[in-house]
Amino acid sequence: MRDVSIIGIGQVPVGEHWNKSLRLLGAEAVLASLADARVERPEALYAGNMLCGQLSNQQNLAALVADYAGLRGIEAIRTEAACASGAAAVRMGWMAVASGLMDVVVALGVEKMTDAPGGRTTTALAAAADAVYEGEHGISFVALNGLLMRRYMHEYGYEHDDFAGFSVNAHANAVHNPNAMFRKAISPEAYRRAKMISDPVSLLDSSGIADGAAAVVLAPTAHAQERGLPAVRVLASSVGTDSVAIHDRHETLFLSAAEISVQRALAQSGLRLTDMDFFELHDAFTIIATLSLEAAGFAPRGQGVRMAMEGAIALDGSLPISTMGGLKARGHPVGASGVYQIVEAVQQLRGEAGQSQLPHCRVGMTQSIGGSGATIVTHILGS
Amino acid sequence: MRDVSIIGIGQVPVGEHWNKSLRLLGAEAVLASLADARVERPEALYAGNMLCGQLSNQQNLAALVADYAGLRGIEAIRTEAACASGAAAVRMGWMAVASGLMDVVVALGVEKMTDAPGGRTTTALAAAADAVYEGEHGISFVALNGLLMRRYMHEYGYEHDDFAGFSVNAHANAVHNPNAMFRKAISPEAYRRAKMISDPVSLLDSSGIADGAAAVVLAPTAHAQERGLPAVRVLASSVGTDSVAIHDRHETLFLSAAEISVQRALAQSGLRLTDMDFFELHDAFTIIATLSLEAAGFAPRGQGVRMAMEGAIALDGSLPISTMGGLKARGHPVGASGVYQIVEAVQQLRGEAGQSQLPHCRVGMTQSIGGSGATIVTHILGS
Repeated sequence: MRDVSIIGIGQVPVGEHWNKSLRLLGAEAVLASLADARVERPEALYAGNMLCGQLSNQQNLAALVADYAGLRGIEAIRTEAACASGAAAVRMGWMAVASGLMDVVVALGVEKMTDAPGGRTTTALAAAADAVYEGEHGISFVALNGLLMRRYMHEYGYEHDDFAGFSVNAHANAVHNPNAMFRKAISPEAYRRAKMISDPVSLLDSSGIADGAAAVVLAPTAHAQERGLPAVRVLASSVGTDSVAIHDRHETLFLSAAEISVQRALAQSGLRLTDMDFFELHDAFTIIATLSLEAAGFAPRGQGVRMAMEGAIALDGSLPISTMGGLKARGHPVGASGVYQIVEAVQQLRGEAGQSQLPHCRVGMTQSIGGSGATIVTHILGS
Repeated sequence: MRDVSIIGIGQVPVGEHWNKSLRLLGAEAVLASLADARVERPEALYAGNMLCGQLSNQQNLAALVADYAGLRGIEAIRTEAACASGAAAVRMGWMAVASGLMDVVVALGVEKMTDAPGGRTTTALAAAADAVYEGEHGISFVALNGLLMRRYMHEYGYEHDDFAGFSVNAHANAVHNPNAMFRKAISPEAYRRAKMISDPVSLLDSSGIADGAAAVVLAPTAHAQERGLPAVRVLASSVGTDSVAIHDRHETLFLSAAEISVQRALAQSGLRLTDMDFFELHDAFTIIATLSLEAAGFAPRGQGVRMAMEGAIALDGSLPISTMGGLKARGHPVGASGVYQIVEAVQQLRGEAGQSQLPHCRVGMTQSIGGSGATIVTHILGS
């Protein structure tokens, strides 16, 4: 298999794009990534999206976006793994290039969530849960995370305030990211006073519903070097799964799929966790950030939240996370977030992260989670 | 890249499975394919499905099916390309094995359409069209095909009766297929009298809405040979695309994406059209079968329907199609059909097609179409 690099990135600012259709959001990100890579026509487009059928009554989105990006004719397939749909598209693009089958591929994540009629988005997001054993009973996806957070607090003896560090860090890091939706720093006091959504999950524990699109161009590392392009290598790409329903897990508070995918990624790259200069994790909820840190192996069970309490996750901490705002403050256009994470990791590794730039940044990990931990996609990138 | 073979097949009879959930249909087909391949645990499951979000409020279906098939932990990603979703899953599985990344992968197609509340399935299927320029105006997917058929008849001077051969052939071939939904031969007279759905598309021009699931196990050909398994080689796997909206096409009556994907498949395999012993095409509507034969190159423009009129498509004709019933008489569980086609091609190439068996059968082509021609996936298989 061939060594693969990301040679171009593109993104639309995350926000409420009521004046842009799903297809146009996708096409804008694709075209931006192609311009960045100085490529005119890739051989394939893999497009990650979760909700196009439910919210836009549109399927076959990959072909549609390819056409609107001026790429009619190329291979185009949509990938879906709930909120990990975008990362899954990158996984497919990586396979297509690593295999030797194609030389230039675009992986896109795109989602449009904010202008659906009231309540529909919440109902649609519940499809990330088990429809028969969870969704059918009327529980929303936020409520499921509320159950997880409550259980964690009960099991390990934490207070709600202990999770504040995740939100404070994410919002602080989003201030300088022009593509983030919530570019306003928040105080621990603001976190404390935030409106409760599904106790104990408050507004500031949750990432926001948003529209957005991000894309990366993948090519063989050797080709990129020949053409003198700034290439960021994909050192590992992996997927792990677990039950969709939370009550079916072997351990309610352990993201087994994260452990599996991280172990696979480390084996593939020959790296260790201590080699990671940062970790773009899936902070859709503060409890999920906590559980990710633990399952990935960065913290022991019950100690993930301490990394936020003690500042280890800050830009100058031992393991910076959400370095440009994360899902929390960038906003979470679900099927696109996995690609935004990778775009931002490339920005860090290229030294193009502006005021969010990490010093001495060589290797980073990204991780995207579908459902409450059912499908977890991990990538390791290196400059 | 490695030579890849299909070493196992599994299918659930196409029909109305009101007593089986989407996940169970999928798991049954996966387990049947694994048993056929004498494999216990594949490394990945790629699951093609179009409508799980819209009709079952369930996303992340690949992880869900993997879990219910006892495969928790493996890589699992859903592919979607409207009615070509299943074929797209086989494409991904083929890439994963051809790349050298994995040794055993399952590709599944699964769909559940028959027990949604009245009208919802028709609305959901319209998502295969362009939501903004076609679906929004209230046109159903059948009506779009009606426009195509009317235009074809007008342009080339055919009568509705001229299309009868497609349905008569498909139904005749389904009689001996225990997995087909409509195992009853029909006469040209029955075709003539069939109820009109969307003039000129009648009930017997259309494939039926259905539930179903089919799966194939992919592995390196060399491994299969070592283990003495009956391997059917994947000689080519390709995808081509076109605009989603029909009015945007360069030629309304030419499936450009089919031409692209067939040309790619022929180049990959080094074969010619005349090498094909049969063609499992996407006869969702008789007009689509016609256009497929033309765009693939088996008939000149305006002459595809003649292959049905003259019997060339029969089991003893020059190019047998729908050899075990096709979408028309097998039934069309949309995201699953692409895999049923490949399963049946394997049955033919193994000599296990029963009374539908073609003599001297060495190489066959399958082709699955997403939307009215937007995404077209072609495979060439050989014994």
